[in-house]
Amino acid sequence: MDRMKNAGVISIGNELLSGRVVNTNSTYISQFLKQYGISVNFIITIGDDKSAIIQAIDACRLHADLIFITGGLGPTHDDITKTTIAEYFNSKLVFHEDILNDIRDLFRRRGKVMSESNVSQAMIPDKAQIIPNPVGTAQGMKFQQKDKTFYVMPGVPIEMERILIDSVSIDMEQLSEARINTLTIHTTGVPESELYGKIENWISIQKQIGISILPHFTHIDLVLYSGDTDSLTLLDIAKRQLAEKLGEIVYGYDDETLEMDVANLLIDKKMTIAVAESCTGGLITDRLTNVSGSSAYFILGVVTYSNESKVLLINVNPETLKRYGAVSSETAKEMALGVRKLSGCDIGLSSTGIAGPPGGSDEKPVGLVHVGLSMSGFLESFEFRFLQDRIMNKQLFSQMALNQLRLTLLRE
Amino acid sequence: MDRMKNAGVISIGNELLSGRVVNTNSTYISQFLKQYGISVNFIITIGDDKSAIIQAIDACRLHADLIFITGGLGPTHDDITKTTIAEYFNSKLVFHEDILNDIRDLFRRRGKVMSESNVSQAMIPDKAQIIPNPVGTAQGMKFQQKDKTFYVMPGVPIEMERILIDSVSIDMEQLSEARINTLTIHTTGVPESELYGKIENWISIQKQIGISILPHFTHIDLVLYSGDTDSLTLLDIAKRQLAEKLGEIVYGYDDETLEMDVANLLIDKKMTIAVAESCTGGLITDRLTNVSGSSAYFILGVVTYSNESKVLLINVNPETLKRYGAVSSETAKEMALGVRKLSGCDIGLSSTGIAGPPGGSDEKPVGLVHVGLSMSGFLESFEFRFLQDRIMNKQLFSQMALNQLRLTLLRE
Repeated sequence: MDRMKNAGVISIGNELLSGRVVNTNSTYISQFLKQYGISVNFIITIGDDKSAIIQAIDACRLHADLIFITGGLGPTHDDITKTTIAEYFNSKLVFHEDILNDIRDLFRRRGKVMSESNVSQAMIPDKAQIIPNPVGTAQGMKFQQKDKTFYVMPGVPIEMERILIDSVSIDMEQLSEARINTLTIHTTGVPESELYGKIENWISIQKQIGISILPHFTHIDLVLYSGDTDSLTLLDIAKRQLAEKLGEIVYGYDDETLEMDVANLLIDKKMTIAVAESCTGGLITDRLTNVSGSSAYFILGVVTYSNESKVLLINVNPETLKRYGAVSSETAKEMALGVRKLSGCDIGLSSTGIAGPPGGSDEKPVGLVHVGLSMSGFLESFEFRFLQDRIMNKQLFSQMALNQLRLTLLRE
Repeated sequence: MDRMKNAGVISIGNELLSGRVVNTNSTYISQFLKQYGISVNFIITIGDDKSAIIQAIDACRLHADLIFITGGLGPTHDDITKTTIAEYFNSKLVFHEDILNDIRDLFRRRGKVMSESNVSQAMIPDKAQIIPNPVGTAQGMKFQQKDKTFYVMPGVPIEMERILIDSVSIDMEQLSEARINTLTIHTTGVPESELYGKIENWISIQKQIGISILPHFTHIDLVLYSGDTDSLTLLDIAKRQLAEKLGEIVYGYDDETLEMDVANLLIDKKMTIAVAESCTGGLITDRLTNVSGSSAYFILGVVTYSNESKVLLINVNPETLKRYGAVSSETAKEMALGVRKLSGCDIGLSSTGIAGPPGGSDEKPVGLVHVGLSMSGFLESFEFRFLQDRIMNKQLFSQMALNQLRLTLLRE
């Protein structure tokens, strides 16, 4: 087989140039192609404009083997993409009765009547191979010109994704010499430099595995990839080696979230949990209940925003609040203990801090949080300091609370 | 003055092509330029590759007056962008002692020691006008070539944004004939077709105001824009006319959120609120506490996920749960009443429903939610049905709960 094919993406739509819509489709296409070892060389974003579309296709033909074109196929776009492309490939639009029936059917199943403007969506260039769109009215199209292949798809993300997964994947499988396998390792709680220090030597001796370090706002991912014929075995070995080097800072792999890892630990240990939140305002319980089946371990959450509710509902001592303040290690511990007692759960978790923007002082600045944790025979609090804005602080605080819960459960 | 200038954007970075990072910088640049009436004609995204950068700049010169280049200026990128651009403009890199001092200072203020790799960031092409970067180590650069202007900026979003706002804005003000003013109107609770029906006639007679309808997942925005010299007055008139036509489906303007509108209503009416959540799992209180100053009206939230906690904590009648089920109008009302009583607040708000994926039945399918609302002399519940997945359902449920609260407060 020849050298690996490469790709170019053309994203069409005025909304992408005006800044109203972020171009996530091109990101999706890049990720989709990466698993087949096909790399995207460039992405060109243009408006619904005939001459711009033609110029972009001309430029792409010079620099890529596979050209992915998205957008401008809806009935409200005056079919600018489809008529332009038909012209570009010296093709004429032909009416397809069966496609119109499919479209009419789609409307019927949604309990709606098809509008006349949808008839144009049954017109397809005669030189195009139709790529079925099972979830929308605009069909995908494929054009072959010498050694260049053009895929034309609607811009609605869910429709484009289905066309890629259901149909384009079959072509890509054939092109791909070896499928690229990837493994994402999620870590939290240590900065990038410290993470890197732990695996620097390991990275330097890798030959068959590529590695990216991707810092996110609340966590850092390691992405490993390999196109080797043995890549699954290689990634599995790497996973075990890295798990050993990184230890408890790893909380999950691929699609797993921190809250899923916490859920699994709680289910394994047959433990139930209740949460008392102040500064995080419900975000910890929101995250815990994002996991399907969370009612197995999550019993009760309280957001005791005022001092009064801390006293009345979860039995925080008014003296503690007076002496140490609501944002203190002491209050965090009493909140955790109080909500555990109230709920009868095995674990009580709490947060109290200053999300900002107002409310900070020299001693207790914005970004300070105390996390409390109570279990049978165990009562601790943990302090963290950040420097972000209100919404970011809530995210970081909830991450620290869930991570501290995870670490404590691991060590128990 | 000649015709309005137009712009092209070149985004540089392997991470943008591999699908690891979404290109939000180009969206930001488009929005930034739009307010000066400057439109972006195209966005080209390429990797950290010398020949690709040169080809992209060549292509952009043909089709745009202003060329915005971002990315590839960090010390870890081997300065591929800077050396390539220096070469492109026949410029040589010159060391700037003052810039190095500034960089060293920035590290000192962050309590860190400058690494040697940062010295390269004090090397600037001699034909570039330096655009200061107050929040990072990579300076912005401006090149003028005949009637084309090139702005080169780091790819870190916060640094690029500061350079645009602090410095590039001055150039843009000069280019701009009339600043484009925009007004965004947020609506929720009615579908796009119904919204459009209410304002169709109004839209058809507008000559000086442009209008976009932007449907989002939980709400629909109307964006009005005008570059007229009287645009502020025109937008103000339009705002009043549309507010009258749209009535209570409008919940805010520009940066306002639904939770801010609810906050303002509660503060105006001097009312306090407590929330009892089941299916939304804390998301309603999370949203309410995203508003700075929310402790003025938000007193207590409880997430009573189990039947037992509904009974014990907020006094839901076990008979009600047995007879109608946890997901019922009756339970929603008792939860709202119960949390109001428990907290002593003016208002109790509740949610109970089936977020999915499991737990649905024919009678009570996934996507069903009951919202309960209790005030002095008022106890009601409201039913909504959606068809989404767990995370989306939680978003939609919380939107309906906050919107129902808003509507009730408005009508009181």
